[in-house]
Amino acid sequence: MTDNCIFCMIVKGEIPSYTLYEDEDVKVFLDINPISKGHSLFIPKKHYKTLFSVPEEDIVFLKKLPMVAKKLKETTEAEGVNIVQSNERAAGQVIFHVHFHLIPRWSNDGIIKFPEQGKLEQKTAEEIIKKFKN
Amino acid sequence: MTDNCIFCMIVKGEIPSYTLYEDEDVKVFLDINPISKGHSLFIPKKHYKTLFSVPEEDIVFLKKLPMVAKKLKETTEAEGVNIVQSNERAAGQVIFHVHFHLIPRWSNDGIIKFPEQGKLEQKTAEEIIKKFKN
Repeated sequence: MTDNCIFCMIVKGEIPSYTLYEDEDVKVFLDINPISKGHSLFIPKKHYKTLFSVPEEDIVFLKKLPMVAKKLKETTEAEGVNIVQSNERAAGQVIFHVHFHLIPRWSNDGIIKFPEQGKLEQKTAEEIIKKFKN
Repeated sequence: MTDNCIFCMIVKGEIPSYTLYEDEDVKVFLDINPISKGHSLFIPKKHYKTLFSVPEEDIVFLKKLPMVAKKLKETTEAEGVNIVQSNERAAGQVIFHVHFHLIPRWSNDGIIKFPEQGKLEQKTAEEIIKKFKN
Protein backbone atom coordinates (compact mmCIF):
# COMPACT_ATOMS: atom_id res chain seq x y z
CA MET A 1 0.00 0.00 0.00
CA THR A 2 1.21 3.46 -0.81
CA ASP A 3 -0.12 6.65 0.73
CA ASN A 4 -1.62 9.12 -1.69
CA CYS A 5 -2.21 6.44 -4.34
CA ILE A 6 -5.84 6.79 -5.38
CA PHE A 7 -6.08 3.11 -6.40
CA CYS A 8 -4.67 1.95 -3.04
CA MET A 9 -7.38 4.10 -1.43
CA ILE A 10 -10.01 2.41 -3.60
CA VAL A 11 -8.61 -1.00 -2.61
CA LYS A 12 -8.82 -0.03 1.07
CA GLY A 13 -12.37 1.27 0.58
CA GLU A 14 -11.39 4.81 1.56
CA ILE A 15 -12.66 5.99 -1.81
CA PRO A 16 -15.87 4.40 -3.16
CA SER A 17 -15.90 2.63 -6.51
CA TYR A 18 -18.43 0.89 -8.71
CA THR A 19 -17.01 -2.58 -8.13
CA LEU A 20 -17.71 -5.37 -10.62
CA TYR A 21 -15.46 -8.00 -9.10
CA GLU A 22 -13.16 -8.39 -6.13
CA ASP A 23 -11.10 -11.14 -4.57
CA GLU A 24 -8.00 -11.30 -2.37
CA ASP A 25 -5.71 -10.31 -5.25
CA VAL A 26 -7.62 -7.88 -7.46
CA LYS A 27 -10.36 -5.33 -7.70
CA VAL A 28 -12.28 -4.52 -10.88
CA PHE A 29 -14.35 -1.36 -11.06
CA LEU A 30 -15.97 0.92 -13.61
CA ASP A 31 -13.82 3.79 -14.86
CA ILE A 32 -15.53 7.01 -13.80
CA ASN A 33 -14.46 8.59 -17.11
CA PRO A 34 -15.36 5.82 -19.55
CA ILE A 35 -14.40 5.84 -23.20
CA SER A 36 -17.02 3.18 -23.91
CA LYS A 37 -19.96 1.69 -22.05
CA GLY A 38 -18.64 -0.65 -19.36
CA HIS A 39 -15.04 0.62 -19.52
CA SER A 40 -13.47 -0.90 -16.42
CA LEU A 41 -10.17 -1.08 -14.61
CA PHE A 42 -8.64 -4.35 -13.45
CA ILE A 43 -6.05 -3.69 -10.74
CA PRO A 44 -3.91 -5.75 -8.37
CA LYS A 45 -4.50 -4.95 -4.70
CA LYS A 46 -0.76 -4.88 -4.21
CA HIS A 47 0.86 -1.64 -5.28
CA TYR A 48 3.20 -1.73 -8.28
CA LYS A 49 4.02 1.51 -10.02
CA THR A 50 4.23 -0.01 -13.50
CA LEU A 51 4.12 -3.48 -15.03
CA PHE A 52 7.93 -3.37 -15.16
CA SER A 53 8.09 -3.91 -11.41
CA VAL A 54 5.72 -6.89 -11.20
CA PRO A 55 7.75 -9.99 -10.22
CA GLU A 56 7.20 -13.18 -12.22
CA GLU A 57 5.57 -14.99 -9.35
CA ASP A 58 2.98 -12.22 -8.90
CA ILE A 59 1.62 -12.33 -12.46
CA VAL A 60 -1.05 -14.77 -11.30
CA PHE A 61 -3.04 -11.75 -10.14
CA LEU A 62 -4.16 -11.72 -13.79
CA LYS A 63 -5.81 -15.14 -13.58
CA LYS A 64 -9.33 -13.69 -13.48
CA LEU A 65 -8.73 -11.28 -16.39
CA PRO A 66 -10.15 -13.67 -19.03
CA MET A 67 -13.28 -14.38 -16.97
CA VAL A 68 -13.87 -10.70 -16.18
CA ALA A 69 -13.28 -9.62 -19.81
CA LYS A 70 -15.68 -12.28 -21.08
CA LYS A 71 -18.35 -11.43 -18.54
CA LEU A 72 -18.00 -7.71 -19.25
CA LYS A 73 -18.51 -8.40 -22.95
CA GLU A 74 -21.66 -10.36 -22.20
CA THR A 75 -22.92 -7.79 -19.69
CA THR A 76 -22.56 -4.88 -22.09
CA GLU A 77 -23.52 -6.94 -25.16
CA ALA A 78 -20.29 -5.73 -26.75
CA GLU A 79 -18.84 -7.33 -29.87
CA GLY A 80 -15.27 -7.31 -28.61
CA VAL A 81 -13.00 -6.16 -25.80
CA ASN A 82 -9.64 -4.41 -25.78
CA ILE A 83 -7.21 -4.75 -22.91
CA VAL A 84 -4.95 -1.71 -22.67
CA GLN A 85 -2.21 -1.21 -20.11
CA SER A 86 0.03 1.87 -20.02
CA ASN A 87 3.47 2.23 -18.47
CA GLU A 88 4.97 5.65 -17.81
CA ARG A 89 3.58 9.06 -18.68
CA ALA A 90 4.73 8.90 -22.33
CA ALA A 91 2.44 5.87 -22.75
CA GLY A 92 -0.51 7.69 -21.21
CA GLN A 93 -0.18 6.44 -17.63
CA VAL A 94 -1.75 8.89 -15.19
CA ILE A 95 -2.26 6.80 -12.05
CA PHE A 96 0.96 5.11 -10.98
CA HIS A 97 -0.57 1.87 -9.76
CA VAL A 98 -0.65 -0.91 -12.39
CA HIS A 99 -4.05 -1.14 -14.07
CA PHE A 100 -5.50 -2.87 -17.10
CA HIS A 101 -8.25 -1.05 -18.98
CA LEU A 102 -11.05 -3.31 -20.19
CA ILE A 103 -12.72 -1.52 -23.06
CA PRO A 104 -15.89 -3.02 -24.57
CA ARG A 105 -15.96 -2.45 -28.33
CA TRP A 106 -18.48 -2.42 -31.13
CA SER A 107 -17.86 -2.60 -34.89
CA ASN A 108 -16.87 0.75 -36.34
CA ASP A 109 -17.14 2.55 -33.00
CA GLY A 110 -13.86 4.33 -33.77
CA ILE A 111 -12.85 4.27 -30.11
CA ILE A 112 -9.16 3.44 -30.43
CA LYS A 113 -7.18 4.80 -33.35
CA PHE A 114 -3.76 3.51 -34.31
CA PRO A 115 -1.56 5.23 -36.87
CA GLU A 116 -0.68 3.75 -40.23
CA GLN A 117 1.49 0.69 -39.86
CA GLY A 118 5.01 0.80 -41.21
CA LYS A 119 7.09 -1.96 -42.71
CA LEU A 120 9.78 -3.60 -40.61
CA GLU A 121 13.18 -3.30 -42.30
CA GLN A 122 15.59 -6.20 -41.84
CA LYS A 123 18.39 -3.89 -40.68
CA THR A 124 16.21 -2.30 -37.98
CA ALA A 125 14.98 -5.72 -36.85
CA GLU A 126 18.50 -7.09 -36.54
CA GLU A 127 19.68 -4.03 -34.59
CA ILE A 128 16.81 -4.31 -32.12
CA ILE A 129 17.32 -8.04 -31.63
CA LYS A 130 21.05 -7.60 -31.08
CA LYS A 131 20.49 -4.89 -28.47
CA PHE A 132 17.67 -6.81 -26.80
CA LYS A 133 19.74 -9.94 -26.39
CA ASN A 134 22.76 -8.07 -25.04
CA MET B 1 -1.76 -26.07 -32.48
CA THR B 2 -4.21 -25.12 -35.15
CA ASP B 3 -3.67 -25.55 -38.86
CA ASN B 4 -3.77 -22.37 -40.89
CA CYS B 5 -3.03 -20.20 -37.85
CA ILE B 6 -0.13 -17.95 -38.85
CA PHE B 7 1.05 -17.59 -35.23
CA CYS B 8 1.04 -21.37 -34.70
CA MET B 9 3.19 -21.59 -37.84
CA ILE B 10 5.58 -19.00 -36.37
CA VAL B 11 5.70 -21.00 -33.12
CA LYS B 12 6.51 -24.15 -35.06
CA GLY B 13 9.16 -22.30 -37.07
CA GLU B 14 7.35 -22.90 -40.35
CA ILE B 15 7.25 -19.14 -40.88
CA PRO B 16 10.32 -17.13 -39.88
CA SER B 17 10.09 -14.32 -37.34
CA TYR B 18 12.39 -11.74 -35.79
CA THR B 19 12.39 -13.36 -32.37
CA LEU B 20 13.30 -11.33 -29.28
CA TYR B 21 12.53 -13.93 -26.66
CA GLU B 22 11.35 -17.52 -26.50
CA ASP B 23 10.81 -20.14 -23.83
CA GLU B 24 8.63 -23.22 -23.49
CA ASP B 25 5.47 -21.16 -23.00
CA VAL B 26 5.82 -18.04 -25.16
CA LYS B 27 7.39 -16.47 -28.19
CA VAL B 28 8.04 -12.74 -28.57
CA PHE B 29 8.82 -11.32 -31.99
CA LEU B 30 8.87 -8.02 -33.83
CA ASP B 31 5.63 -7.05 -35.59
CA ILE B 32 6.38 -6.89 -39.31
CA ASN B 33 4.02 -3.90 -39.60
CA PRO B 34 5.13 -1.84 -36.62
CA ILE B 35 3.29 1.24 -35.38
CA SER B 36 6.38 2.29 -33.41
CA LYS B 37 10.01 1.26 -33.31
CA GLY B 38 10.30 -2.07 -31.52
CA HIS B 39 6.57 -2.89 -31.72
CA SER B 40 6.47 -6.56 -30.74
CA LEU B 41 4.01 -9.37 -30.21
CA PHE B 42 4.01 -11.53 -27.09
CA ILE B 43 2.15 -14.80 -27.75
CA PRO B 44 1.51 -18.05 -25.92
CA LYS B 45 2.74 -21.11 -27.82
CA LYS B 46 -0.53 -22.80 -27.03
CA HIS B 47 -3.37 -21.76 -29.32
CA TYR B 48 -6.23 -19.79 -27.80
CA LYS B 49 -8.52 -17.86 -30.13
CA THR B 50 -9.11 -14.99 -27.72
CA LEU B 51 -8.25 -14.14 -24.14
CA PHE B 52 -11.77 -15.26 -23.21
CA SER B 53 -10.76 -18.89 -23.69
CA VAL B 54 -7.56 -18.82 -21.60
CA PRO B 55 -8.12 -20.94 -18.46
CA GLU B 56 -7.10 -19.48 -15.09
CA GLU B 57 -4.25 -21.91 -14.62
CA ASP B 58 -2.72 -20.97 -17.98
CA ILE B 59 -2.38 -17.24 -17.29
CA VAL B 60 1.16 -17.87 -16.03
CA PHE B 61 2.27 -17.75 -19.66
CA LEU B 62 2.31 -14.00 -18.99
CA LYS B 63 5.00 -14.25 -16.32
CA LYS B 64 7.73 -12.93 -18.61
CA LEU B 65 5.62 -10.01 -19.88
CA PRO B 66 7.02 -7.49 -17.33
CA MET B 67 10.63 -8.50 -18.05
CA VAL B 68 10.15 -8.37 -21.83
CA ALA B 69 8.32 -5.02 -21.70
CA LYS B 70 11.04 -3.51 -19.52
CA LYS B 71 13.84 -4.83 -21.68
CA LEU B 72 12.10 -3.65 -24.84
CA LYS B 73 11.81 -0.16 -23.34
CA GLU B 74 15.53 -0.16 -22.55
CA THR B 75 16.47 -1.61 -25.94
CA THR B 76 14.55 1.02 -27.89
CA GLU B 77 15.30 3.80 -25.39
CA ALA B 78 11.56 4.43 -25.26
CA GLU B 79 9.95 6.55 -22.54
CA GLY B 80 7.05 4.20 -21.98
CA VAL B 81 5.34 1.05 -23.21
CA ASN B 82 1.72 0.23 -23.96
CA ILE B 83 0.37 -3.29 -23.78
CA VAL B 84 -2.63 -3.74 -26.08
CA GLN B 85 -4.61 -6.91 -26.51
CA SER B 86 -7.63 -7.21 -28.80
CA ASN B 87 -10.46 -9.71 -28.66
CA GLU B 88 -12.78 -10.22 -31.62
CA ARG B 89 -12.90 -8.35 -34.90
CA ALA B 90 -14.82 -5.36 -33.45
CA ALA B 91 -11.86 -4.76 -31.14
CA GLY B 92 -9.37 -4.89 -34.01
CA GLN B 93 -8.33 -8.54 -33.73
CA VAL B 94 -7.08 -9.85 -37.07
CA ILE B 95 -5.12 -12.97 -36.12
CA PHE B 96 -7.19 -15.32 -34.01
CA HIS B 97 -4.41 -16.53 -31.73
CA VAL B 98 -4.11 -14.57 -28.47
CA HIS B 99 -1.39 -11.90 -28.69
CA PHE B 100 -0.29 -8.93 -26.65
CA HIS B 101 1.10 -5.94 -28.55
CA LEU B 102 4.08 -4.29 -26.85
CA ILE B 103 4.25 -0.76 -28.17
CA PRO B 104 7.22 1.44 -27.20
CA ARG B 105 6.11 5.03 -26.72
CA TRP B 106 7.67 8.48 -26.65
CA SER B 107 6.19 11.73 -25.30
CA ASN B 108 3.80 13.36 -27.75
CA ASP B 109 4.30 10.65 -30.39
CA GLY B 110 0.53 10.60 -30.95
CA ILE B 111 0.60 6.86 -31.64
CA ILE B 112 -2.55 5.77 -29.84
CA LYS B 113 -5.55 8.06 -29.79
CA PHE B 114 -8.46 7.57 -27.46
CA PRO B 115 -11.71 9.54 -27.75
CA GLU B 116 -12.88 12.10 -25.25
CA GLN B 117 -13.74 10.50 -21.94
CA GLY B 118 -17.32 10.60 -20.79
CA LYS B 119 -18.70 10.79 -17.30
CA LEU B 120 -20.04 7.66 -15.64
CA GLU B 121 -23.66 8.15 -14.56
CA GLN B 122 -24.75 6.40 -11.37
CA LYS B 123 -27.75 4.83 -13.09
CA THR B 124 -25.59 3.32 -15.86
CA ALA B 125 -23.05 2.07 -13.32
CA GLU B 126 -25.70 0.37 -11.22
CA GLU B 127 -27.28 -1.26 -14.26
CA ILE B 128 -23.93 -2.67 -15.42
CA ILE B 129 -23.03 -3.95 -11.95
CA LYS B 130 -26.44 -5.60 -11.53
CA LYS B 131 -26.14 -7.36 -14.91
CA PHE B 132 -22.50 -8.33 -14.32
CA LYS B 133 -23.24 -9.93 -10.98
CA ASN B 134 -26.27 -11.85 -12.29
